[in-house]
Amino acid sequence: MSRTCKGLFADSPDDKFYVKDFERRAVAPKDVDIDIKFAGICSSDLHVKKSEWGPTDYEVCPGHEIAGIVRAVGSEVTKFKVGDRVGVGCMVDSCRTCECCKNGDEQLCQNGMVQTYNDRLRYDHHPDKGAKTYGGYSTGIVVDEAFVVTIPDSIELDKAAPLLCCGITTFSPLYHYGLKKGQHFAVAGLGGLGHMSVKFALAIGAKVTVLSRGTAKRDDAFKLGAHDYVDVKDPEAMKAAAASIDFILDTISAKHDLTSYLSLLRYDGKLIMVGASPEPLDLVVFTIIMGRKTIAGSPIGGIAETQKMLDFCGEHGVAPEIEVISADYVDEAYERVHSADVRYRFVIDIANTLK
Amino acid sequence: MSRTCKGLFADSPDDKFYVKDFERRAVAPKDVDIDIKFAGICSSDLHVKKSEWGPTDYEVCPGHEIAGIVRAVGSEVTKFKVGDRVGVGCMVDSCRTCECCKNGDEQLCQNGMVQTYNDRLRYDHHPDKGAKTYGGYSTGIVVDEAFVVTIPDSIELDKAAPLLCCGITTFSPLYHYGLKKGQHFAVAGLGGLGHMSVKFALAIGAKVTVLSRGTAKRDDAFKLGAHDYVDVKDPEAMKAAAASIDFILDTISAKHDLTSYLSLLRYDGKLIMVGASPEPLDLVVFTIIMGRKTIAGSPIGGIAETQKMLDFCGEHGVAPEIEVISADYVDEAYERVHSADVRYRFVIDIANTLK
Repeated sequence: MSRTCKGLFADSPDDKFYVKDFERRAVAPKDVDIDIKFAGICSSDLHVKKSEWGPTDYEVCPGHEIAGIVRAVGSEVTKFKVGDRVGVGCMVDSCRTCECCKNGDEQLCQNGMVQTYNDRLRYDHHPDKGAKTYGGYSTGIVVDEAFVVTIPDSIELDKAAPLLCCGITTFSPLYHYGLKKGQHFAVAGLGGLGHMSVKFALAIGAKVTVLSRGTAKRDDAFKLGAHDYVDVKDPEAMKAAAASIDFILDTISAKHDLTSYLSLLRYDGKLIMVGASPEPLDLVVFTIIMGRKTIAGSPIGGIAETQKMLDFCGEHGVAPEIEVISADYVDEAYERVHSADVRYRFVIDIANTLK
Repeated sequence: MSRTCKGLFADSPDDKFYVKDFERRAVAPKDVDIDIKFAGICSSDLHVKKSEWGPTDYEVCPGHEIAGIVRAVGSEVTKFKVGDRVGVGCMVDSCRTCECCKNGDEQLCQNGMVQTYNDRLRYDHHPDKGAKTYGGYSTGIVVDEAFVVTIPDSIELDKAAPLLCCGITTFSPLYHYGLKKGQHFAVAGLGGLGHMSVKFALAIGAKVTVLSRGTAKRDDAFKLGAHDYVDVKDPEAMKAAAASIDFILDTISAKHDLTSYLSLLRYDGKLIMVGASPEPLDLVVFTIIMGRKTIAGSPIGGIAETQKMLDFCGEHGVAPEIEVISADYVDEAYERVHSADVRYRFVIDIANTLK
C-alpha cells in the first residue's frame, strides 16, 4: 500500500517551491521505507530546478542528500531494520549488470544510473519500472536497499545529509586517485565541496592549502584547519607556491585558468576535477607533458564507497559545516546558494518543518 | 686529450647544414667515448634547428637518437667496455640529487636535465661544466656513463637509433600509465611516435586501433599489425567506436578536438599526451567527470626505463620502420619530415657518409 508524503515541488524554472501531498510506492520485498529527517541543498538542485542541465521533467521534487530513519522494510531486506539511521544519495537504481555496477561503480553504470529525482526507474528488474523519481525534499522515500547506506551513530543526522552527495563527491577522488598522508593537498575553490575536501584531506594526514581568488576566504580556510592559503590572483604568492602541490581538487564550476593551477603541481602531480565549467577550459599541453602531470575527472562515487566514506567520517569525526533551515526558507536558500552566501551547506529540517 | 670529430651543423633557422670538424672533450674518469654509427632524425630536431622551441643557441649540431660502439672508457667506468653497442638519448646529464633523479626519473629533474644538444653542462659535478652540448649528427660523442645505455645484440644499430627518443617517448607512457594485455589501445596520429606505439602495444598484447584523419594511413595501420582503424573525420565510425577504448596515446602535435577523442574512452579510460599542440586544446570538463577519465602528459623517460625499453625491444623483436639516409641528404630529409613524408623515421648513416 502506497503512503502519502509531503514534498516541496517546483513546476517551472522561476516559480517558487510549493508543498504538495504525493504518493510513495508500496514497499516491495527489497525496499526500505524511510522517514526523511534532513535533506541537504546541493547546487545541482538549483541547476535542475532552473532546467539548466538538460530539460527538467517538471514537476520536480529535488534533493539527493537524504538522512532519515527506517520506518519499514520489505520482506527480503537483509541490510536494514526499522529504526536504523540511513542515508540516500544521488542514485536509487542502476542496471546492476554492467562491468561498472559489478565493480561497485554504480555511478559509472554503462546503461545509466537512475537519479534520485528528475529521472525514471527504467530497468526491468525494478518493481516500480516506469515511475518518475522524486527526491529528498519530502517527508519520506522508498528505496531499494541496494541504494541505501548506514549512517554511523557518531554522525548527527543533520550533518550526515550533505555527506550523501557533497561528502562522497570529495571523498571519492581523494580515495580513488590516492591522496596519501604527508602529501601536499590543495583545493581550488572553498565552497560546499571545497570545505568538505579540506576536512577529508586533514583527516587523511595531508598538508592542506586552500587556493582561492582574493582574500575573502582566508580566515575561513584557517578556521577549517588549512595549513596554508594562496590567493590565486597574487602573482608573488603563486610563484612561491609553484611546483609544490601533489594533489589539487578543482571544485571550480566556472571557467578558470587551468594553466596557473597546473603550475602549482609538482612532477607526477594530479589535478582532479569535480567542478564542471560550462565553458571549455584551455589546456596547454606542454604543462602536463613536462612534469608528467595528470588531469582527471571524478563524479560522485559508488554505494560501497559511500558507505566507506560514512564510516570514515564516523571514525575521524569528519562532518560538514551546515546551516539548518526550515522548509519554507528553501527559495531564499536557493538565492543564497546562487550568490555563494552559505557556510557551507544548507540542510532542510524536513521532519519538523515540512508541513 | 680531446679528439676531432666531424659534425653536421646549422647556424641559422633557414640555412642548410654544413659539415665541420670540432673537438670532443678528453675522456674523463666516468666518460664513455662513442663512435657514432647511426643517428635518428626527430621532429624536435627540426624545431630546434628552426629556433621554434625558444631561441636556439647556434651553431647547433642536433641529434638525440644515437647508436654507436664504445671506442674508449674512462678509468672509473664500470658499465661499459670498448666494443660495446650503446645508445644515447635526449639527456647527457642531470642534477643527480633531486627526488626525481634519485627515483630514476632524470627526465623530470627538478633542476633541469642537460639536453644532448643545444644546452650547457651546468652542474658542479661535471668535469666539463660550462661546455656547450653537441648532438648525434656527428662521428663521435663523449658521455658520462650514467647517461649511456646498452643496445641488445638482437637490435640492429640503425633501427636502435630511433628507440633512444621515439622509442622511449612511446614506451614510457604505456609502461608508466599501465597499458595491460587484453586492453584496447589506440594511437591518435600515425607518425614516428604513433607507429612505434602500435608496435609496443601489440607486443604488450593489447588490441590496437589507429585513429587518423581520413583514410590515407589505413593500409599502413593494418600493415603494422593494427586490429582496427578509425577515420576520426567519419562520424559513423566515431560513433561505432564510442566508449570502447581503454588507453589512447595522443601523438598529435597540432590543435585537435580533444572532446571527440575523449568520447572514444571507456569509463576510467586514459588519454596520454606526448604530442604538444602549440595552441591550447579545448577541455570540456564534463567529458572527463562523467566516466572518471584521465588526461595526462608524458615526456621521454628515465635512463633505467630507457634500458628497460631497449631490453623489451630486444626480447620482443620490436623495432621502428626506418629509411637510412646519407649525411648529405639531411636537408631534404628535414623537408620531408616537415611534410610528414617519411615511413616512419629517417636515420643518418653517420659512419659511412659523414665525411
